[in-house]
Amino acid sequence: MNWLLPEYLADALPAEAAKIERLRRQTLDLFRCHGYELVMPPLLEYLESLLTGSGQDLRLKTFKLVDQLSGRTMGVRADITPQVARIDAHLLNRQGVVRLCYCDSVLHTLPAATAGTREPIQIGAEIYGHAGVEADLEIIRLMAAALEGAGLSAARLDLSHVGIFRAIAQAAGLPAAADEEVFALLQVKDIPGLQAACAGLPEPYRSALLRLPDLYGDASVLAKARQQLPDLPAVHAGLDLLSALAAKAGDLPIGFDLSDLRGYHYHNGVVFAAYSPGYATALALGGRYDGAGEAFGRARPATGFSMDLREVARLAPATQVSKAILAPYGGEDAQLAAAIARLRAEGEAVVELLPGQAGSEGLPCDRRLVQQDGKWIIAAINKD
Amino acid sequence: MNWLLPEYLADALPAEAAKIERLRRQTLDLFRCHGYELVMPPLLEYLESLLTGSGQDLRLKTFKLVDQLSGRTMGVRADITPQVARIDAHLLNRQGVVRLCYCDSVLHTLPAATAGTREPIQIGAEIYGHAGVEADLEIIRLMAAALEGAGLSAARLDLSHVGIFRAIAQAAGLPAAADEEVFALLQVKDIPGLQAACAGLPEPYRSALLRLPDLYGDASVLAKARQQLPDLPAVHAGLDLLSALAAKAGDLPIGFDLSDLRGYHYHNGVVFAAYSPGYATALALGGRYDGAGEAFGRARPATGFSMDLREVARLAPATQVSKAILAPYGGEDAQLAAAIARLRAEGEAVVELLPGQAGSEGLPCDRRLVQQDGKWIIAAINKD
Repeated sequence: MNWLLPEYLADALPAEAAKIERLRRQTLDLFRCHGYELVMPPLLEYLESLLTGSGQDLRLKTFKLVDQLSGRTMGVRADITPQVARIDAHLLNRQGVVRLCYCDSVLHTLPAATAGTREPIQIGAEIYGHAGVEADLEIIRLMAAALEGAGLSAARLDLSHVGIFRAIAQAAGLPAAADEEVFALLQVKDIPGLQAACAGLPEPYRSALLRLPDLYGDASVLAKARQQLPDLPAVHAGLDLLSALAAKAGDLPIGFDLSDLRGYHYHNGVVFAAYSPGYATALALGGRYDGAGEAFGRARPATGFSMDLREVARLAPATQVSKAILAPYGGEDAQLAAAIARLRAEGEAVVELLPGQAGSEGLPCDRRLVQQDGKWIIAAINKD
Repeated sequence: MNWLLPEYLADALPAEAAKIERLRRQTLDLFRCHGYELVMPPLLEYLESLLTGSGQDLRLKTFKLVDQLSGRTMGVRADITPQVARIDAHLLNRQGVVRLCYCDSVLHTLPAATAGTREPIQIGAEIYGHAGVEADLEIIRLMAAALEGAGLSAARLDLSHVGIFRAIAQAAGLPAAADEEVFALLQVKDIPGLQAACAGLPEPYRSALLRLPDLYGDASVLAKARQQLPDLPAVHAGLDLLSALAAKAGDLPIGFDLSDLRGYHYHNGVVFAAYSPGYATALALGGRYDGAGEAFGRARPATGFSMDLREVARLAPATQVSKAILAPYGGEDAQLAAAIARLRAEGEAVVELLPGQAGSEGLPCDRRLVQQDGKWIIAAINKD
């Protein structure tokens, strides 16, 4: 049974691979047109630089390996964003606004969901060096455009703000160790779990934390949050930012969910998630992670988003695939070989039959090169 | 020093990444035009299926990991070809000729050379289901065209045949354990090493093995080999095949080197290597590996080639990179936003300045969007 793959790892066969490749190019072209420069960080890094500033979550997701050259532990990246932050902070060392994008495989020790993969193809875009809401808005628009381009219009773009939760948790004196647990309980809106975890906390902070899971919906959520949440500067600042974003968002389908606090714990400002109709999980995620480069020597404002191209390709509607032209073996016939070369130069896929071969089982062909009156012309293939 | 990467692993920064991406698309398009279908095998597989039929060399190159789901050992692929052979043998299960291609990262525990990388981007193409010399020729032509497309014309395409060495080694009674060692000595033309390794072998086989390193050059090598090598059927068959290939190769710069026996020991017929002027190492390698799918339930004729896209991009001449257009922030100005969107739809990269930003440090811009008589027009940027 040598052909069995480990669970949650799979080959992308021709139809799926073609779809992934098409969406990869289209999305990277979208990024390029918006001024984002492509970078390709390595699959492996020393574990400590890979996990700098991230939480326990990413640590558990990361495969570990021993470097035979240094004897040190390396990790296979489980997330590309911290690598791109390292590139901005240390390698590019530009002072102004830097826009970077990437598209590569990451590996996870365990799948994120039972329907998931352990090898997502992470594609994303990041802006460094701008703290304003305009940078977040550019990223949110780019995220919506990337999904739109894949034929998956974002029906809902949910905004949230990690600073609101952190301010309340801090005022409540929630121990740092419990922080990650409460974060996770909020994420899944587990009210009984939250009640237990917050049992000993002082009012009004305990009630505020328990109220967060109910603060989702349209813009009225922000007004409700101002009434119901404690009067803390960071809470107001977070709500102000969400209002400002929503006001500038034009016709984007913006919603709010104050307990939807995504990411690998490096996010520390506004966060956003894009949902498509008929699909419960967020298709694309992002947010602000100011200062992520600090561990690499330079703290910079940062915002960005990413998505799993494998999952996007799985959900994206099929598109018309251009079919190939079947040609006889052209080896000894210079005129035929020239005709084939010409068609290929025009971008056509021409499948050349090899000697002894009757038909093609490979690319679907809808046309055929045939000789007529001494010339090679294209004729339709009628069968099926 | 969190930003230090392990040795022989590196980021591809924007200029290099753009070059790799351009060559990636161009080469995959070349494959597609020739009827090759893209596949994407996973980064990880169970170790035994990853190493099926390969030698000690690949085993040492492969990083090992424990699968938390099964407790079994997985390997990070160090070579994609065996994975593609598995896909042809088991997953596609087509009877006729199948053409497949791929482009993805592989990892090696140690670099192949001191100037090398531990993370090559392997790009290649394979034909399954055709045993004829025409399939090898198609692959050799494709290899030459791929290098040509990258601006690296193959100055020399060296052919060799693993069957010639194997026939002599078998007739000499060379123990299987020594096989791999002699193979490696031949590869580097280490004559003293070869003399020692072959010391106890009977004539004329010992002399024949020692003569292989001298059998390189133009077509006259084949005539010399017929005189000097033992009269074994497999030796004749191998030389006949090389003659047939050379006869059909037209204007390709074919040469021969009977001790240049590449690959991870799955090759068992003709092998080929492409060299570029001024560069000692082969840029692209390939050959025939009939029956590689046997371990996966189906033995099929197979031939293919691959190259490291990182290395090809490093050596390829630079090409004119299209520059971007700098635009003011378009947030509140519908007319400006529409002008930016129109340029992007035409494929232009437009870098939008964010509020507070004076100039762009990102993509090089050679034009600028300016307002004139109430219209947005493109003006040249004069400063450098």
